[in-house]
Amino acid sequence: MSNILIIHAHPEPQSLTSALKDLAAAHLRADGHEVKVSDLYAMNWKAVADANDFSAPQDTERLKYIRESKRAFKAGTQTSDIRAEQDKLLWADAVLFSFPLWWYGMPAIMKGWFDRVFANGFGYGVGEHGPERWGDRYGEGTLAGRRAMVIVPIGGHGPHYSDRGVNGSLEDVLWPIQHGMLFYPGMEVMEPFAVYGSDRLDPDGWRGVAEKFKDRLSGLFTDAPIPYRTQNGGHYDRDRRLKPGLGHQERGTRIHLVQPGDPEEVLGGRVRRLVS
Amino acid sequence: MSNILIIHAHPEPQSLTSALKDLAAAHLRADGHEVKVSDLYAMNWKAVADANDFSAPQDTERLKYIRESKRAFKAGTQTSDIRAEQDKLLWADAVLFSFPLWWYGMPAIMKGWFDRVFANGFGYGVGEHGPERWGDRYGEGTLAGRRAMVIVPIGGHGPHYSDRGVNGSLEDVLWPIQHGMLFYPGMEVMEPFAVYGSDRLDPDGWRGVAEKFKDRLSGLFTDAPIPYRTQNGGHYDRDRRLKPGLGHQERGTRIHLVQPGDPEEVLGGRVRRLVS
Repeated sequence: MSNILIIHAHPEPQSLTSALKDLAAAHLRADGHEVKVSDLYAMNWKAVADANDFSAPQDTERLKYIRESKRAFKAGTQTSDIRAEQDKLLWADAVLFSFPLWWYGMPAIMKGWFDRVFANGFGYGVGEHGPERWGDRYGEGTLAGRRAMVIVPIGGHGPHYSDRGVNGSLEDVLWPIQHGMLFYPGMEVMEPFAVYGSDRLDPDGWRGVAEKFKDRLSGLFTDAPIPYRTQNGGHYDRDRRLKPGLGHQERGTRIHLVQPGDPEEVLGGRVRRLVS
Repeated sequence: MSNILIIHAHPEPQSLTSALKDLAAAHLRADGHEVKVSDLYAMNWKAVADANDFSAPQDTERLKYIRESKRAFKAGTQTSDIRAEQDKLLWADAVLFSFPLWWYGMPAIMKGWFDRVFANGFGYGVGEHGPERWGDRYGEGTLAGRRAMVIVPIGGHGPHYSDRGVNGSLEDVLWPIQHGMLFYPGMEVMEPFAVYGSDRLDPDGWRGVAEKFKDRLSGLFTDAPIPYRTQNGGHYDRDRRLKPGLGHQERGTRIHLVQPGDPEEVLGGRVRRLVS
């Protein structure tokens, strides 16, 4: 049995997003998992990163957020709300991110959770940075070994988010989140659970969504994650550009997915296997 | 001479991001333009969209943000901070968005500016929605005729954001912002002004950046915008998928750029010309 953290952002407890969060918590608990929920609106989460995030800043004349963040993380002078979220992340074996798609991204309150909780030394700035490797990131990092999944009701129509849809494909829309925010600190990212036409869902539609969602939750630790390439597994050169010959059948973000026939990735001396 | 609005998000007035904002305002004013600045941190901008955004909500039992947003916009019961920003946008001929890249996106305080200011009926939900057209969006909408440019200092290295860089290309990282948030309500989006290695810039580096930036500002109304395809110009089908035969040399987000040899787009009975 595992520990699962849900980061949730919706202002209305009766919304579809909140219903999915509640269903996830109940279903996972019924399966014997332990579940914690960070309900950001209910917690009145401080969304805005600023000088108040540091109880003992080194430089009071000029805020250098990145530098203060590193110092506060190391010195234990982060604010207690940030530390509490970091502790929950370290406790968790999987993290679900539950939010409605607003302007092709997450609500500001959740963006502020990342801006503040993923501190320098915790979410980034981890590991050695030099010519041979540029930190422990993209498959390595503080949150390695954990799984992540985005749960995202979307007001728009599915075809608009398809491979040739006018919004861009959902995988491209979610690229900065799934690759840039979740894979970056080391989590294995599962396919997102998206619900299109979320403001037009009737009770029958909800039942269908709930069944599919429970299947996805049951596969949280057994389904294959998105096969993003690791930074340090051998597929990128010293400029952190994809090596020649790799991804040649793809363009855009899809070049960063491991493809059949690619050389094996070796991380920390071990061959990486994408399916557990 | 034109009206230019700068939306700025950085907690530190002495930062590179703030210096670029100041330089933009000074340079544009020296060229005779009128400039307004929304300095979101200085304004203590409310980042979090919630029930308090509606002074006279229709449904007090359950917050349906999209519905209340439409109603408040029409009825004139939005909060004054939201209305003030909408008025500035309508006043502007060009809008600059100045922010540091945090977790592959904008700081939460600016995301909350979009979440709240781009109301239903203003930023989206504009025009007829039906089989023939799905609203006035992507090249049409409330902000049509205005130009937009992202000004974005980035801590990371340029090659990591190149076409094969591990972070994804900058155009893919900025896709949800530039296409999804700026082109969507009708603005013409200029190439972004990015500064890599922003936390390692020395005085010589700054001088070079400033010169390049001033050139870009001087071309704000004459340089060609990113040639995103309009939704209603004839390149998408009724499912809002790119029509067969278009974008065939590209994949990912790049299929949504007009290419030489593509049929002309016809918007509102007029052929669209990308270069003014």
